[in-house]
Amino acid sequence: MRKIVTLTTDFGLRDPYVAEMKAVILGICPDAVIVDVSHEVAKFDVRTGAYMLASAAPYFPKGTVHVAVVDPGVGTARKCLIVETKQGFLIGPDNGVLILAANKQGIIGVREITNPKLMLPHVSDTFHGRDVFAPAAAHLAKGASLADFGPEVRDAVKPKFVTVKSSKGKLVGEVLHVDGFGNIVTNVGEEALGNLKTWDSVGVNINGFNVKTELAKTYTEAKPKEVFVLMGSQGYVEIAVNQGSAAEQFKAKTGDKVTLYGK
Amino acid sequence: MRKIVTLTTDFGLRDPYVAEMKAVILGICPDAVIVDVSHEVAKFDVRTGAYMLASAAPYFPKGTVHVAVVDPGVGTARKCLIVETKQGFLIGPDNGVLILAANKQGIIGVREITNPKLMLPHVSDTFHGRDVFAPAAAHLAKGASLADFGPEVRDAVKPKFVTVKSSKGKLVGEVLHVDGFGNIVTNVGEEALGNLKTWDSVGVNINGFNVKTELAKTYTEAKPKEVFVLMGSQGYVEIAVNQGSAAEQFKAKTGDKVTLYGK
Amino acid sequence: MRKIVTLTTDFGLRDPYVAEMKAVILGICPDAVIVDVSHEVAKFDVRTGAYMLASAAPYFPKGTVHVAVVDPGVGTARKCLIVETKQGFLIGPDNGVLILAANKQGIIGVREITNPKLMLPHVSDTFHGRDVFAPAAAHLAKGASLADFGPEVRDAVKPKFVTVKSSKGKLVGEVLHVDGFGNIVTNVGEEALGNLKTWDSVGVNINGFNVKTELAKTYTEAKPKEVFVLMGSQGYVEIAVNQGSAAEQFKAKTGDKVTLYGK
Repeated sequence: MRKIVTLTTDFGLRDPYVAEMKAVILGICPDAVIVDVSHEVAKFDVRTGAYMLASAAPYFPKGTVHVAVVDPGVGTARKCLIVETKQGFLIGPDNGVLILAANKQGIIGVREITNPKLMLPHVSDTFHGRDVFAPAAAHLAKGASLADFGPEVRDAVKPKFVTVKSSKGKLVGEVLHVDGFGNIVTNVGEEALGNLKTWDSVGVNINGFNVKTELAKTYTEAKPKEVFVLMGSQGYVEIAVNQGSAAEQFKAKTGDKVTLYGK
Repeated sequence: MRKIVTLTTDFGLRDPYVAEMKAVILGICPDAVIVDVSHEVAKFDVRTGAYMLASAAPYFPKGTVHVAVVDPGVGTARKCLIVETKQGFLIGPDNGVLILAANKQGIIGVREITNPKLMLPHVSDTFHGRDVFAPAAAHLAKGASLADFGPEVRDAVKPKFVTVKSSKGKLVGEVLHVDGFGNIVTNVGEEALGNLKTWDSVGVNINGFNVKTELAKTYTEAKPKEVFVLMGSQGYVEIAVNQGSAAEQFKAKTGDKVTLYGK
Repeated sequence: MRKIVTLTTDFGLRDPYVAEMKAVILGICPDAVIVDVSHEVAKFDVRTGAYMLASAAPYFPKGTVHVAVVDPGVGTARKCLIVETKQGFLIGPDNGVLILAANKQGIIGVREITNPKLMLPHVSDTFHGRDVFAPAAAHLAKGASLADFGPEVRDAVKPKFVTVKSSKGKLVGEVLHVDGFGNIVTNVGEEALGNLKTWDSVGVNINGFNVKTELAKTYTEAKPKEVFVLMGSQGYVEIAVNQGSAAEQFKAKTGDKVTLYGK
């Protein structure tokens, strides 16, 4: 069966960078089916890159190879990683961009990519997406085994945005992403939903803005312009405004602290 | 032969939503060739989504499966449709987004998608693109027959934007789309061209702006900055400005009334 | 082996134009693997289109068919070209958009596309991307030979932006492209690098702004907000600002004159 390779980057679609990654992949593994997850991650926004990948990955078939390149440290000593999970493979820099997807899928093993035979012959200091990560994905899709790539890694970077503080009447997390509809996606995942569901109402506090609302099921259940909270289709709690932009109303951006409270 | 599945949505390319639809399609039908028509339809703009699909569809091979998801009513009682035409299949919500393409291709039959076996196991209330329409397309590409999906539909929604009022010296329609070059695409199709061609000159009235001009063949036939009218490459009458933006000049946006007149 | 066809245009991703090109290609050559290089070239900016194509092309396998449509003269007498190079094929209008890639790859022969059997049955005056260039690419991918397309061309257009004036202590070129990170890509290619490497420091002059700096290897080698010059990953000298935008600092846009000097 043909292997799927997905790409998540902050390169944008204007520049030829994404095409160069695809060229390298198809040069090594002509049968690969390449799917773009997103190339419009805000520049250097590791948190949103991690969210994009973790959101999309569960829908791909087993064995899919996911590449995520949001890489402000390219050319420095930060490691290049391959993570084997129970669902497939994750490839990218060691800065946390793989962590949300890896945790969701269940980590089997992590390797550093150090084998020059599985990179392009000339590795630039500025574009490891093309020179290291794309060839690694293609070689993996073609059948290379994890151990071929390099030594095991036991201390991969764990960024702050994976943590949600949960107590009986309170959940404190942060904004992972603001989507194109203005919905605020938090890092509060399904594991915290049980707590939230016991509350009569849900208070939302972001950037000093405070609103009391309810847990809804659909975007249209609320009245027009009403704020509501829902378990979004991506597996994270979202704050939304029916036919409006929650991000505008709360002046929210990625990284902002979010407090949900109830009783 | 491998089946082509096209996607037209208002999801944008920044969020992972389009990738999730592709993941679902490839999971069910690994041989599908997926082609993006556009994901930059303005949010909830059913009219432009319908235009995009109707423009692109004629160029695809027979049997292509087209999915269009501009779906402000997701989660409400609006139906999910599959339309079989003389050229292929159209899949999307019952809000008119399929109608322009369906009318061009010639409708054979319409079904509501109700069979849960041809959806994802868990159908969210907010993302039928991924949970209903993508799996329907993939099952169709894999060989499911129309009758498997659900009951026949005889009262599909017919939106206002399919109608052009035509009299001897006058055509009244509306703006379907403003393209990236600022050209104004109207809903006046090839069937009205015969009328227009008998006129000596063409008057254009949009938003109170009034210009007298001519029917041109190419964008460069007119003088720089001159307004002209032409049968566009998409099969609809366009109003354009050579090396300029007609949309800016007429302050035009989708849905605006367009009057063309002559004698 | 399945043939790769790449697309570089100024059509944007909002309109259905790119999808129509893909539809035509897949209709003629169902096995083609289509890769987008960029569709966000600024409208009519032949120089940037040429840069995009020349940057991405070297990474594709031998035999790849590249189509570039930045075509302000569509519908006029300008020729439609196929260039055979030592690496593959380049298809597009005769306005210089193919020249940087052609020169890099080494030209074997150039033909004008005049054979109507290798175009769509109806060729519009406004969209040769779909009606001439896409079918040409697909027929080539399917095995048509160069001589089938039309007569040899010996006087293809050579635009000004291919020229760099090089003297001992000075290089005068122009801005080819400003990338999404704000890096200024010049038309100074690798052949001029030897000269530049002998200098102790590098002076940069753009739009009257003047900065003295050094030749760096990576984006992170410089201090935050510091200007530096490097041989970019695309094979052209770039002017960059670490964690900032060089284009903003120098108010640079494509076509601006760039002087690099040293001793």
